[in-house]
Amino acid sequence: MGVSISEQSIAEVEAAFLPSEKHGADIRFHGAVRDSEDERPISGIEYSHYEGMALVELEKIAREMADSEIAHLVAIHHKIGFVSNGEASIVIRVQTPHSADAFRITAEYLRRIKASVPIWKKPIFADTDTSAA
Amino acid sequence: MGVSISEQSIAEVEAAFLPSEKHGADIRFHGAVRDSEDERPISGIEYSHYEGMALVELEKIAREMADSEIAHLVAIHHKIGFVSNGEASIVIRVQTPHSADAFRITAEYLRRIKASVPIWKKPIFADTDTSAA
Repeated sequence: MGVSISEQSIAEVEAAFLPSEKHGADIRFHGAVRDSEDERPISGIEYSHYEGMALVELEKIAREMADSEIAHLVAIHHKIGFVSNGEASIVIRVQTPHSADAFRITAEYLRRIKASVPIWKKPIFADTDTSAA
Repeated sequence: MGVSISEQSIAEVEAAFLPSEKHGADIRFHGAVRDSEDERPISGIEYSHYEGMALVELEKIAREMADSEIAHLVAIHHKIGFVSNGEASIVIRVQTPHSADAFRITAEYLRRIKASVPIWKKPIFADTDTSAA
């Protein structure tokens, strides 16, 4: 299944992705950190997770998707710790024989991960200072 | 718009992709060559294009998508010449503020490219020999 959660960067994990001669469609979805939160500038996001549970939940999603969807390859990595603006915090890679399936399956992984994997975001505001408002 | 057609590999083009701090979703769709065609093993596909027209058509698709879709960034590269099994012949990269739009827009680029860009595929069969059948 190839799912992981760690402080390793998305770029590093992605560098090890292997090609396939059986799958014509290969989608990589990156979720990247934007430079603001509620219209306030941030420098990045600190991600934390419910250790153990987050990975268990991610593995459960992969098992359920393997059962309910057509055969596909999947690799998912979520970075925890500080992720700076513009950097990806998650990659979902899906390989299928044909393209239409790949879009549907990737979107469905993302939906399920957002709904149930216990990972939390703490925006680090760029304009934070210690003086009173 | 960042659309191109050349003998340059997908990996080379992708290495120059820039991050964005304004777009939370970043999808890269790769179309890869599979190892068979009509159940006969191949070693790869030779892609050729109607020079001039193919790029004009690709640029037209990007302009029409910019008009009809929400604001997004797009980069598309199609490799021509020989592409071996497992290697990608096309990458479509779409960046949007939110993820749902990115899936829809990327799939729509792919649909339009398949429908109208004059690029042809010639499978190179692995079992080709010169003797009579």
